[in-house]
Amino acid sequence: MAPPSQLLPPTLQILRHRCHLSTVVSPPSKAVLYDEHGAPEQVLRVADAPPVHLGDRDVCVRMLAAPINPSDINRIEGVYPVRPPLPGAVGGSEGVGQVHALGPAVTAPLSPGDWVIPSPPSFDLHRQAPECLAKVRSDVPMEYAATATVNPLTALRMLQEFVKLNPGDAIVQNGATSIVGQCVIQLAKLHGIHTINIIRDRPGSEEAKDKLKQLGADEVFMESQLDMKNVKSLLGALPEPALGFNCVGGNAASLLLKFLRQGGTMVTYGGMSKRPVTVPTSYFIFKDISLRGFWLQRWMNSDKAEDCRTMIDYLLGLVHEGKLKYEMELIPFGEFSLALEKALGKHGSQPKQVMRF
Amino acid sequence: MAPPSQLLPPTLQILRHRCHLSTVVSPPSKAVLYDEHGAPEQVLRVADAPPVHLGDRDVCVRMLAAPINPSDINRIEGVYPVRPPLPGAVGGSEGVGQVHALGPAVTAPLSPGDWVIPSPPSFDLHRQAPECLAKVRSDVPMEYAATATVNPLTALRMLQEFVKLNPGDAIVQNGATSIVGQCVIQLAKLHGIHTINIIRDRPGSEEAKDKLKQLGADEVFMESQLDMKNVKSLLGALPEPALGFNCVGGNAASLLLKFLRQGGTMVTYGGMSKRPVTVPTSYFIFKDISLRGFWLQRWMNSDKAEDCRTMIDYLLGLVHEGKLKYEMELIPFGEFSLALEKALGKHGSQPKQVMRF
Repeated sequence: MAPPSQLLPPTLQILRHRCHLSTVVSPPSKAVLYDEHGAPEQVLRVADAPPVHLGDRDVCVRMLAAPINPSDINRIEGVYPVRPPLPGAVGGSEGVGQVHALGPAVTAPLSPGDWVIPSPPSFDLHRQAPECLAKVRSDVPMEYAATATVNPLTALRMLQEFVKLNPGDAIVQNGATSIVGQCVIQLAKLHGIHTINIIRDRPGSEEAKDKLKQLGADEVFMESQLDMKNVKSLLGALPEPALGFNCVGGNAASLLLKFLRQGGTMVTYGGMSKRPVTVPTSYFIFKDISLRGFWLQRWMNSDKAEDCRTMIDYLLGLVHEGKLKYEMELIPFGEFSLALEKALGKHGSQPKQVMRF
Repeated sequence: MAPPSQLLPPTLQILRHRCHLSTVVSPPSKAVLYDEHGAPEQVLRVADAPPVHLGDRDVCVRMLAAPINPSDINRIEGVYPVRPPLPGAVGGSEGVGQVHALGPAVTAPLSPGDWVIPSPPSFDLHRQAPECLAKVRSDVPMEYAATATVNPLTALRMLQEFVKLNPGDAIVQNGATSIVGQCVIQLAKLHGIHTINIIRDRPGSEEAKDKLKQLGADEVFMESQLDMKNVKSLLGALPEPALGFNCVGGNAASLLLKFLRQGGTMVTYGGMSKRPVTVPTSYFIFKDISLRGFWLQRWMNSDKAEDCRTMIDYLLGLVHEGKLKYEMELIPFGEFSLALEKALGKHGSQPKQVMRF
């Protein structure tokens, strides 16, 4: 989580080579670290980060903001398949910072004051190669620059990777109130694609439904509304969806599958219910349904750095134009413990927590 | 079922046009018919088929043999998505016959005595277009010509359609004692592909295991042997399989999934346990597993008639060379009721029942 915490005011050092040690050292900074896996509230500690000499080809970055994502929590818990080495791992993986100082031999087109994000997202306590920093526009709210890489990019990529969608087509998703879900609705609408959205039954569902409709959702159903045989009768004039996004599993995945058209594809990118996906064999044989998975990290690691940066620029462009938005709470780093509790769901349903440094 | 029954000795009429009625009528024949869906032993009746005038462009075929397939049972039960119209539907869909007489205007390269199969498999009580008859070699046992279209073709097609396999690769399957399973083992071995096979625990499992090994299976495991975390430790020098074939569902599908390598694909083509396929979401996200389905009828209906005939010729060529074999019981049509009971599993595990007319 709070990766940014990695660098409390004033700076985070992202260094490449240490061959020529300069006399410039990083300003005092703090990091949220963990030395063993476990419950985040127990294993995380806010610590002073040791000062680092700025090498000729190093870039020193002052972190501005960074979110606490579910995958950060899973890394800290030790249940994520790719994790930073222990001890001394930094909690968190995406965020935005500002270039503070540049070593004299840095060739990347960066200047002090530029906004940069780690691309692919990851924080090392002290250093990261300058080629892993992507410059982003600084005329958007910092919480968007801090969060563009994980959730909005997942939404955009999933809309492109699995099924060729044309204007007028429809998709279906569960977990539609998540940031990915909100982005899917808006990105689909921008391309003329209809969205059918499934949300949980809980206090505030009606309000959540209205919010998603304001973002452009065509239909929003609570799970309890779909406890019927022929859910497709609810589609009205909408076409049967060719593609579905599942981030919940269990019953919510089964409900999604009922909507898919012959030959449709369901992509699983999360498992919030911690329940498996269960599919009658007839769906495979007679409905020709395909089930796939999406993991942003796998895609990013497959030599897609350039595509990735282009897509982040596109997404932040939409944010700048007011065409892409989602709920976040920007919270001072001093209140890290509260933000962590909120991110862990201990205060009920809360918007995405983004630390400000 | 017993589609062939459709045409008891001496003949089955397969007619195309009736524009010019000749004075030639079909010889007396019998068919196994059903007028409503239900338990096969209750709804099927053996009936005299009405004589039909042979038109100028008609072909009259005398059926030789036809199997009782599980999909025939499902059609009769009414649980198969594509079913012949009622009343007067013929039970059964594949088989082999011999050309008995040809109308004078038939242009297909057929002569009396030729062996033909309906391609795609389907029986109409009285007529089928001559272009839906494929000539096959007659120097193989008739039970192989009668059964090449459904099960061996499924095995061959599934090995080609989903994953590009190279010699040295491995696949995994459950329901390995089925005819599809036996064909998969032999066809894979012919192409240098290893097979990992899962079978049920039951009396005679050890014998079944030996039989599959004699066909060329690399590994055969009973389900109970796989009740462990790291099934891959059982693979020895075999590579992790990139492809799996599931015709069982339930636990047998879960066991198969445990063997698949990162990025692997499981294809479901049957659901013998009548249980769904259950998959942890992490398999999709982190193991990048894809789940697909295969239905021979969909593939055949998609303009693949020529491919299909070429593949059947290839399969019967292998039979002729002694490279493809599977267990069947050729049983006289007079014992249809017994064959049906065996096909319905009422006499324990039995080989495929093939009616001889």
